[in-house]
Amino acid sequence: MSELVVVALGGNALQQGKGPADAESQLRVVRQTAALLVEIVKAGNQLAIVHGNGPQVGRIVLQNEAAADITPPMPFDVCGAMSQGMIGYHIQQALGECMAEAGLSGQPVTLVSQVLVDASDPAFTKPTKPIGPFYTQEEAEKIAQEKGYTMKEDAGRGWRRVVASPLPLAIVELPQVKTLLNAGFVPIAAGGGGIPVTRQGKGYSGIAAVIDKDLAAWRMAASLGAKTLLILTEVEQACLYYGRPEQQALGVVSAEQMRTYMEEGHFAAGSMGPKVDAALRFVETGAGRTAVITSLDKAVEGVKGRAGTIIKS
Amino acid sequence: MSELVVVALGGNALQQGKGPADAESQLRVVRQTAALLVEIVKAGNQLAIVHGNGPQVGRIVLQNEAAADITPPMPFDVCGAMSQGMIGYHIQQALGECMAEAGLSGQPVTLVSQVLVDASDPAFTKPTKPIGPFYTQEEAEKIAQEKGYTMKEDAGRGWRRVVASPLPLAIVELPQVKTLLNAGFVPIAAGGGGIPVTRQGKGYSGIAAVIDKDLAAWRMAASLGAKTLLILTEVEQACLYYGRPEQQALGVVSAEQMRTYMEEGHFAAGSMGPKVDAALRFVETGAGRTAVITSLDKAVEGVKGRAGTIIKS
Repeated sequence: MSELVVVALGGNALQQGKGPADAESQLRVVRQTAALLVEIVKAGNQLAIVHGNGPQVGRIVLQNEAAADITPPMPFDVCGAMSQGMIGYHIQQALGECMAEAGLSGQPVTLVSQVLVDASDPAFTKPTKPIGPFYTQEEAEKIAQEKGYTMKEDAGRGWRRVVASPLPLAIVELPQVKTLLNAGFVPIAAGGGGIPVTRQGKGYSGIAAVIDKDLAAWRMAASLGAKTLLILTEVEQACLYYGRPEQQALGVVSAEQMRTYMEEGHFAAGSMGPKVDAALRFVETGAGRTAVITSLDKAVEGVKGRAGTIIKS
Repeated sequence: MSELVVVALGGNALQQGKGPADAESQLRVVRQTAALLVEIVKAGNQLAIVHGNGPQVGRIVLQNEAAADITPPMPFDVCGAMSQGMIGYHIQQALGECMAEAGLSGQPVTLVSQVLVDASDPAFTKPTKPIGPFYTQEEAEKIAQEKGYTMKEDAGRGWRRVVASPLPLAIVELPQVKTLLNAGFVPIAAGGGGIPVTRQGKGYSGIAAVIDKDLAAWRMAASLGAKTLLILTEVEQACLYYGRPEQQALGVVSAEQMRTYMEEGHFAAGSMGPKVDAALRFVETGAGRTAVITSLDKAVEGVKGRAGTIIKS
């Protein structure tokens, strides 16, 4: 029986870390990613894709600011929507080709996706995610006053706008994602963690925030009743005592044990921390669920339970 | 019985002609458009939406060029994908709210859409569509040499890049559009005429071109077996002798008669011409089809056959 895998693609699946940021280079990396992802489909699984957008939306914001004299910069939610179009296009083109080559039907398609957050999420009281260009302190103070942005000093490199990273409550376009999955397609949704929106009357309104894409993938996987949440990152396994002589890679771990490790502080905030958090949220709230944290090249083996850090309830 | 209407939204449905180009103003116009479109659904029709992107993708290209020293400009196909994300997001948010207020299920969703063109389409031998910034003749010659772009002098205002406007052959993501329609959703697809792609092996590759959005809407409407192709524009009806004292607005017209008018040169290229062309292609290739050319505020009446220029086979 075909089982659903929701995969969360990190930055290294979409572009070379320090490589050129032109479209050709990005598409080349996305093609390598697609060649690995298609193996998951070949192995008989259904697939839904969530991806990050950090560097890409950062560049869109820079482009918007650079042209501010010519045309009004778009707000951050709209920049997020643009990044979904850009990244989704490359993924669906590259994966579509790999699937066609493998004789697989059910082509991928990107859905522009809104993700509901709560305007009273405590994250909004202490924004943490830096976005856009660097400014001097003087410029930053002026921007804060004029636009009401929260500006913070960033590791001695200058001042930047920071936005909140609230919890994703629901994928607004989930019914459409489900319909496409049921018809055998590969949906690409909640790109960049989704466009953050809050309720407004009977509809939604965009808000400046960054939703963690692993948490968005958790929300999507849980809502779709997926069997596996596959979180791809730069390392093959989560580790205890990471970067220290006693470092110890984790294979199959129970959710209970993994939560203890997390509470002991083994997983760094802003790095492995949110991935383990997303994995645990997924596994702890449904029977028979598995979360896998591994590297892109171990993706298929991870889904089969033969590689990576595998968290089971 | 519920009948499918494919609507092609023109520039004035997405932003004020000479109004500000900031996100708030655009969303305001899109909300007015959505309030009119929802009436088509309320009247018992299924709806699929195609939209233009001329001014929006133009601004994205300007932003990309303005930041060229900071980050590599994206090629035109990628800019088109970004515009689909941006415009689609606003349409689905605005129309979703109107539908929820009307108690209608089947929310809208934007699909990032590729549209197949033929690399040997004669349009590629004589590019006509200007895109991006203006340059001096000297700059233009340098760009032409360096990047292989075709550059043309634009009405005394300077030199610009021009790209081809080939015929859309197929909507690559048509099966996904169909699936969503069958499930009762409102797909927003082939935005800006679609991201133009050519075949490459078993997949597709982006190409710099502008597909006319009315022709993309024709292709989508015909492929989906739509009953009505609704082309929205600034005027309520197509006219004979447009702008002259003997000007005569057209109501219900047979396809045969309309083709005669077109061949007599009544409809200006780059304005009413492509709309009539798209309408005729639609009506002439399937029995029982109707094409309606009218203004946004007459959209519902047009679908009912009570306003606009109505072309029947």
